[in-house]
Amino acid sequence: MLFHVTMEVQLPPGMPPAQADALKLEEKALAQRLQEEGSWRHLWRVAGRYANVSIFDVPGNEELHALLLSLPLFPYMRIEVTPLCRHPSSTRAGDL
Amino acid sequence: MLFHVTMEVQLPPGMPPAQADALKLEEKALAQRLQEEGSWRHLWRVAGRYANVSIFDVPGNEELHALLLSLPLFPYMRIEVTPLCRHPSSTRAGDL
Amino acid sequence: MLFHVTMEVQLPPGMPPAQADALKLEEKALAQRLQEEGSWRHLWRVAGRYANVSIFDVPGNEELHALLLSLPLFPYMRIEVTPLCRHPSSTRAGDL
Amino acid sequence: MLFHVTMEVQLPPGMPPAQADALKLEEKALAQRLQEEGSWRHLWRVAGRYANVSIFDVPGNEELHALLLSLPLFPYMRIEVTPLCRHPSSTRAGDL
Amino acid sequence: MLFHVTMEVQLPPGMPPAQADALKLEEKALAQRLQEEGSWRHLWRVAGRYANVSIFDVPGNEELHALLLSLPLFPYMRIEVTPLCRHPSSTRAGDL
Amino acid sequence: MLFHVTMEVQLPPGMPPAQADALKLEEKALAQRLQEEGSWRHLWRVAGRYANVSIFDVPGNEELHALLLSLPLFPYMRIEVTPLCRHPSSTRAGDL
Amino acid sequence: MLFHVTMEVQLPPGMPPAQADALKLEEKALAQRLQEEGSWRHLWRVAGRYANVSIFDVPGNEELHALLLSLPLFPYMRIEVTPLCRHPSSTRAGDL
Amino acid sequence: MLFHVTMEVQLPPGMPPAQADALKLEEKALAQRLQEEGSWRHLWRVAGRYANVSIFDVPGNEELHALLLSLPLFPYMRIEVTPLCRHPSSTRAGDL
Amino acid sequence: MLFHVTMEVQLPPGMPPAQADALKLEEKALAQRLQEEGSWRHLWRVAGRYANVSIFDVPGNEELHALLLSLPLFPYMRIEVTPLCRHPSSTRAGDL
Amino acid sequence: MLFHVTMEVQLPPGMPPAQADALKLEEKALAQRLQEEGSWRHLWRVAGRYANVSIFDVPGNEELHALLLSLPLFPYMRIEVTPLCRHPSSTRAGDL
Repeated sequence: MLFHVTMEVQLPPGMPPAQADALKLEEKALAQRLQEEGSWRHLWRVAGRYANVSIFDVPGNEELHALLLSLPLFPYMRIEVTPLCRHPSSTRAGDL
Repeated sequence: MLFHVTMEVQLPPGMPPAQADALKLEEKALAQRLQEEGSWRHLWRVAGRYANVSIFDVPGNEELHALLLSLPLFPYMRIEVTPLCRHPSSTRAGDL
Repeated sequence: MLFHVTMEVQLPPGMPPAQADALKLEEKALAQRLQEEGSWRHLWRVAGRYANVSIFDVPGNEELHALLLSLPLFPYMRIEVTPLCRHPSSTRAGDL
Repeated sequence: MLFHVTMEVQLPPGMPPAQADALKLEEKALAQRLQEEGSWRHLWRVAGRYANVSIFDVPGNEELHALLLSLPLFPYMRIEVTPLCRHPSSTRAGDL
Repeated sequence: MLFHVTMEVQLPPGMPPAQADALKLEEKALAQRLQEEGSWRHLWRVAGRYANVSIFDVPGNEELHALLLSLPLFPYMRIEVTPLCRHPSSTRAGDL
Repeated sequence: MLFHVTMEVQLPPGMPPAQADALKLEEKALAQRLQEEGSWRHLWRVAGRYANVSIFDVPGNEELHALLLSLPLFPYMRIEVTPLCRHPSSTRAGDL
Repeated sequence: MLFHVTMEVQLPPGMPPAQADALKLEEKALAQRLQEEGSWRHLWRVAGRYANVSIFDVPGNEELHALLLSLPLFPYMRIEVTPLCRHPSSTRAGDL
Repeated sequence: MLFHVTMEVQLPPGMPPAQADALKLEEKALAQRLQEEGSWRHLWRVAGRYANVSIFDVPGNEELHALLLSLPLFPYMRIEVTPLCRHPSSTRAGDL
Repeated sequence: MLFHVTMEVQLPPGMPPAQADALKLEEKALAQRLQEEGSWRHLWRVAGRYANVSIFDVPGNEELHALLLSLPLFPYMRIEVTPLCRHPSSTRAGDL
Repeated sequence: MLFHVTMEVQLPPGMPPAQADALKLEEKALAQRLQEEGSWRHLWRVAGRYANVSIFDVPGNEELHALLLSLPLFPYMRIEVTPLCRHPSSTRAGDL
């Protein structure tokens, strides 16, 4: 089941750079593992912002929440979730 | 080059059903042709709305505008465009 | 799987009362059938507005969209969908 | 009498984890007691956010305010209250 | 139980003046009867707008909705409802 | 002359509880004195929020501003002012 | 007593030009008479919009509402009212 | 050339009172000098807020920006600028 | 003097195509003449929308308003005006 | 390819002036170099705000993001990106 998720990151101004770097490294490692496993289907950077647009493929709402909650940057992100479904004009096998 | 586009359709209440149906058929035919040609990379329906989320892959802004302007439903849609770029954590070859 | 859905109805001012009444009757019949079948889990009126708050229990996004699209008042409603999941503090067996 | 309440939690970035954990435990204990007593009728997590959607069943506005004010996380939540009433199409005995 | 209600009236531009006048007369008659009966506790005009601020005193949400739904101008108003309760600093016997 | 005023209080997270308590006590004392004197005509709590809805009866804009500026919590409140006037359908002698 | 008022005019697309012209002429005549009488203290056009910014000097809210209601374009304007008072740094005798 | 400017002041909660007072005194002195020189044409307080509405008369955009930038409270204000021009219905010689 | 102007065109759904085409032709002719004369300094299409971003170079607010008011599509556009001035980091002779 | 970018700068209140000055100097140096190289095509100050409007000419979205990310003030700016394309009524050779 597909979900469209936007994430905008806002680290507190006073966070020590080492802590920020460690968080980002952990985030990247997890993001890459979830992409390999197939649940993080697409991941794009929004040009000019510290934000991304993602498509997740998970069994349901519970799994989506558990996944997002597990992200190291979760406490510092504003997240918007939009449930998607197949478009009647879509011809692409992967878009479901 | 990738663009994230959302389209929300709002047909005028007084439009004759036959005209609406004809427009939708033309829209579908063009959407499918553009998917086959590769410029309309992804197309999803937003659950519960007469709206879609799309990813376009076009050479640039000019081509994106020409493509959207050619859609039969263009005059009846509210369109939002967001330029995307590759995310440093993306591992997916197709997401660029 | 649970979804929180708000629907705000706005009939066009010029719609003949007989047509409006017929639509509302069909809507009511379908809403009651879906409640009996279990997919329309809760349905409340928002005090002071021609709007409702609903909880749907459906297998996934596709089924939610198909259900909402089948409502006779769908073309005249502004719909907002929010995916829900079980709250860690919930003690109520039915809230999942 | 039913009220639809959304709560979005935002703990101050500098709050010590032990204090945050203690607050959450107290919140959970109270939420569970109020569910058992029947005033906190439904409680769901919003997927992807530190937020919930709740339905309260209380004698009136005064009791609703007293209940919300007693929540340990009250000072850190943005709360929206919507009064509900029975929907004319509802067939569910509990939804009043 | 007290509710704060704002109503903004927007009659369709094409409504015949006689129909508009009749609606307003009915609205006025009902508003005055409800004031006499005590459920429409306060009624003020917002300076410079075709809008009002009202305080209703009704047994609960159901009665509030029934009352607002019965207003002849209901189909042409945007209504916002806010449940009120006694303020701990209030000294006025009537404000509860 | 009547004014509708909403006040939403937001104390800084780091304010010492003793200072907050002192401010609230002063605020309450002043609010009660102004109610007795008649300028703070009505005062209600918004259910579920640290906010109030008030009606002030003052000779004019200058006096309203001086009054609000004198509130101990003024620096910590977001205030919205709406000038009111008598509604043509009002039957209540006090609502002017 | 001074009020800051913004007015944005939006004539219905289908209004016959002769009717629109007649309304504008009446509006202009009244605006000029009210300026001469002193209640319409200032009147400026917002560059690039069919809108104005005005300062009214009237005895109170009631008179402001009566004045705005008497404008021929009132039914076609979105009006925002802001009560003003003397600024402690103002040195201009007329700005009170 | 006239500009409508609104300024909303928001001093950081932790600013020492002596520093705030010094800033306000400097701001007042400059505001009064600019009024005498004629560039700060009107200055009103918004009732109930730490905000003002001003009309500036300057040769152009560059001079307006330089003037606003020179205000001691500039770093603590949210400023909105609206260019004005003469209204065709204005009869007041000074409003240009 | 430079102004940043955005224009979003919204023709009424019922406008006959011939009338729309005539308006657009007149708009284009005027836009090109004003570009040649130098007052319409820049003109870009917003990708995916029937909207433009423009930079005007005019002596002042009055001239800007007169110019925009003279556009054939003015009654069908939502216009936003932002006064610009030279940026201290700009090295481009033409950007003033 | 052209992009319209707005940047609003908001330095944290507690940043030491020396650090702020250093950042601004670096930003200016880079902005000037990018103007000379041609990728930062236009740069204007928004009158009355610590904000700018810019036009970038870059090969694509990736290059735009890399450029904006390299700005020393990037972490302190709210950035909005709008892709532009040639306007059919434009006569200016440089506006593409």
